[in-house]
Amino acid sequence: MIDWLKKVHLEFSESARDSAADLDCFHRALQEAGYDAQLDYAQMLRFYELIREADYNLTVTLLRDGKNWRVAAMEAGDSAAPLYALAVDLGSTTVSMRLLNVESGAVLAECTHRNAQREYGDDILSRIFYTTYDPARRKELQRVTVDTLNGLIREVCAAAEIAPEQCCAMALAGNTAMVHFLLGLDTFCLFHTPFLPRIRRVGWIDCAELGLCCAGYIYCFPCTANYLGGDIISGVLSTGFTKKDEISLFVDIGTNGEMVIGNRHFLIGGAGAAGPALEAGISKSGMRARAGAVDSIRIENGELRFTTIGGEKARGICGSGIVDLLAEMLLAGWMDGKGYLNEKASGRIREFEDGRAVVYADESESESGEPLYFTEADIRLFTDTKAAAHTMVELLLQAAGLPVEAVDNIYLAGAFGRHMDLESCITIGIYPDAPRDRFINVGNSSLQGATDLLLGRFTSEEADKVAEEIFYLEFAMEENFMALMQAACFYPYTDLTQYPTVAEKLKKLQTN
Amino acid sequence: MIDWLKKVHLEFSESARDSAADLDCFHRALQEAGYDAQLDYAQMLRFYELIREADYNLTVTLLRDGKNWRVAAMEAGDSAAPLYALAVDLGSTTVSMRLLNVESGAVLAECTHRNAQREYGDDILSRIFYTTYDPARRKELQRVTVDTLNGLIREVCAAAEIAPEQCCAMALAGNTAMVHFLLGLDTFCLFHTPFLPRIRRVGWIDCAELGLCCAGYIYCFPCTANYLGGDIISGVLSTGFTKKDEISLFVDIGTNGEMVIGNRHFLIGGAGAAGPALEAGISKSGMRARAGAVDSIRIENGELRFTTIGGEKARGICGSGIVDLLAEMLLAGWMDGKGYLNEKASGRIREFEDGRAVVYADESESESGEPLYFTEADIRLFTDTKAAAHTMVELLLQAAGLPVEAVDNIYLAGAFGRHMDLESCITIGIYPDAPRDRFINVGNSSLQGATDLLLGRFTSEEADKVAEEIFYLEFAMEENFMALMQAACFYPYTDLTQYPTVAEKLKKLQTN
Repeated sequence: MIDWLKKVHLEFSESARDSAADLDCFHRALQEAGYDAQLDYAQMLRFYELIREADYNLTVTLLRDGKNWRVAAMEAGDSAAPLYALAVDLGSTTVSMRLLNVESGAVLAECTHRNAQREYGDDILSRIFYTTYDPARRKELQRVTVDTLNGLIREVCAAAEIAPEQCCAMALAGNTAMVHFLLGLDTFCLFHTPFLPRIRRVGWIDCAELGLCCAGYIYCFPCTANYLGGDIISGVLSTGFTKKDEISLFVDIGTNGEMVIGNRHFLIGGAGAAGPALEAGISKSGMRARAGAVDSIRIENGELRFTTIGGEKARGICGSGIVDLLAEMLLAGWMDGKGYLNEKASGRIREFEDGRAVVYADESESESGEPLYFTEADIRLFTDTKAAAHTMVELLLQAAGLPVEAVDNIYLAGAFGRHMDLESCITIGIYPDAPRDRFINVGNSSLQGATDLLLGRFTSEEADKVAEEIFYLEFAMEENFMALMQAACFYPYTDLTQYPTVAEKLKKLQTN
Repeated sequence: MIDWLKKVHLEFSESARDSAADLDCFHRALQEAGYDAQLDYAQMLRFYELIREADYNLTVTLLRDGKNWRVAAMEAGDSAAPLYALAVDLGSTTVSMRLLNVESGAVLAECTHRNAQREYGDDILSRIFYTTYDPARRKELQRVTVDTLNGLIREVCAAAEIAPEQCCAMALAGNTAMVHFLLGLDTFCLFHTPFLPRIRRVGWIDCAELGLCCAGYIYCFPCTANYLGGDIISGVLSTGFTKKDEISLFVDIGTNGEMVIGNRHFLIGGAGAAGPALEAGISKSGMRARAGAVDSIRIENGELRFTTIGGEKARGICGSGIVDLLAEMLLAGWMDGKGYLNEKASGRIREFEDGRAVVYADESESESGEPLYFTEADIRLFTDTKAAAHTMVELLLQAAGLPVEAVDNIYLAGAFGRHMDLESCITIGIYPDAPRDRFINVGNSSLQGATDLLLGRFTSEEADKVAEEIFYLEFAMEENFMALMQAACFYPYTDLTQYPTVAEKLKKLQTN
């Protein structure tokens, strides 16, 4: 039983309504049911419309906000309809929404749309610059964000055959810029010293005030900092580790690396730029994970084999393909620890006009009939990214004063966690070489956290508290960041004793 | 020191604003000052505008609503400006407003305007019918009400040379219909069985939501019932008797009679129609209390003398003149206990085409050069009114199970209390014949109650509680109402032992 969202049926006896004002009947009936909630002026007017229409028989949906209850919806009659709510992951590229029956916990519909903000730039920075110093443009970005959400609301509601007004709560997880855009706030602050969000804890906002087509209130997950946003807070809460004694590490690597370590006694988080390497932003043939993208590679007995998304001919390589490629090349002796390719190791390694490269798909395997290759320069770009990711984890462990062995669980969030091969990631040193059963893929944990909040697995106050309690490290500001980065530019790592299972594999290779 | 409205100066240190989001700085600084207040979405946007403009130095005005604090205003800088608030008596004829410095208690300006609702009818009923079943007309009435208030706000603020936005609270006392009009609520319910207001307890409403040009929140005094409105609750609270052990009676007689008896242990209130007699609605020459109205009369040694408002020649007679006329005629033997005139008693008593009458202003004393007179038929109309007033007090005493001697204080509210001669009122039996020092004129107690609330002499919750606790009698529904009315149609009263001082005077007269 969830206890933050309640339907209360109020039927006013004839004697009650003949002896008291409508609004008094309402408050008295609510109080008899054990609740106390104030109506604001707009709700008061709505109440007066409804109460007579409904012949003094109505159902009120109450939403708990800390110690107070808010009226999230009012319906005529004794509504046996379930309590519906919407969980949202507001990503800068795509937006995902889940329609939930919060009592049964059932997911009634789920849908993902393109974020219409992309009309203003694929990267967030373009959108921020577009709106800087221009309140009208901020409103414009807010409107397209709300439009995207409304499109999703209508779609999930249509799929479940309910009206949008039947949804009386929304929990939304998004990074700091996304939440600022949604609220119509100036985002320039996010990219300007001292790099501070204008808002962290948002609380519950009236959906109507934002122009959302559902009823009730929206809760936006708070951020800890500029780069450690509500999406991460939501993800962290979805794992439940902030309530446990075990020590956990939550890692989300994308264009930025965002991570949190801790347990119920302490929480340290950090974020930093990880580079575009992991989102197919490198290599001439790098691409997003779409049909035709090489997404996994194995090298066995000197033979490279790959799969593509959709089983089509290769059109390029996506992040998981790159990670596999480098890991397999390292283990096969095609690439050394510094990221240089060994032409003698395979006929696939050749010189091209843009340097030495490995052909991961040859003429017969590629859609264009041209060989698809990955150059040493591409590898160097990727090296920076993997070094950054490794260094962030290391800095976080240092800040916590813990060896990696002390970490009981490593939660891998986001697309990276979901699609990359864990073994390959460890082989090239993105993740620490910890026992494999400690790694847990949590997928879209941001959407899951929003879902969990709606299903009452934690409260909005707990989320606010976690965001507040995380001690924040700005990785780039850490003194030894650059030195550690240097050490991490080696595959899997300069100090092989930190990568015992990889060292073992490499040793086997050398003895073969 | 008032404790429900507070200015809190917040200045964010450079280190605070460099390490936390603006809104967090705000909440933290407030918490350090000992407060916790949420901003709604509109306030949040306003906050973001202001905080940078104000260079992180601002003053917040907080208003306590029960256990919670609301943000009533935000200003740049360390505002040493006083806390301003507005007390309002929203009458159906005129609207009075006082601008207060709530810390010093000073009245900075006071102003009365005509209620613009009168365009829709001088009597409330016309206005109610105008708006019945028509939401657009309800909005229209709401708009003119708000316009009237805004006109007053601008005028009192101009007089004190402050901006309307510097006022951060308003306390408004009005009868039930007035508050319904202000809130844009359907008022037909007030004149239709079961004669119930749609709203009693209103609470604090955002001034901006109502379209008021001041800042902060407006509190409307709650009503106990349809005819026992917020104006009476405000008046009752202004006297302070609901906190005392002594028993008090609060009486407001106008077109309706409204009264409350009790002390801190019990409260009984009632209301009923008193008739138009007391507002100059009778007699050909009856008029409102304006220049030229006969407002006091004395008969000594067979001679009638009067005064007029402004000292001008007589144009007609107003309520206080009528009360004096009847009292003096009774004591002079010009009129008997049944309200008949004695032609032998004075040359001023003559037959006119509309019956026997007393000439209160002769040809030489009247502006028109025609005699002004008051007929026996006029007296009969007045008799009904005075009988109704007397009966209401009697019913209230009966309901409380108390003799009139048990009442320690009799508060006389409204224009009637302010302008009528107390001795005359007792002589003709409107009020009980109690020791004169128990009568206290409280004038515009409705405006005073609003003032007292703003000055912290009682809280809005206390006002809500008093309105809730008053046990309500609908006088016209009382079984013995008509019988008691009959008995009260005699001057001063059938049972003269209830009017010992008047009996004594009459006895003296007879022996002379």
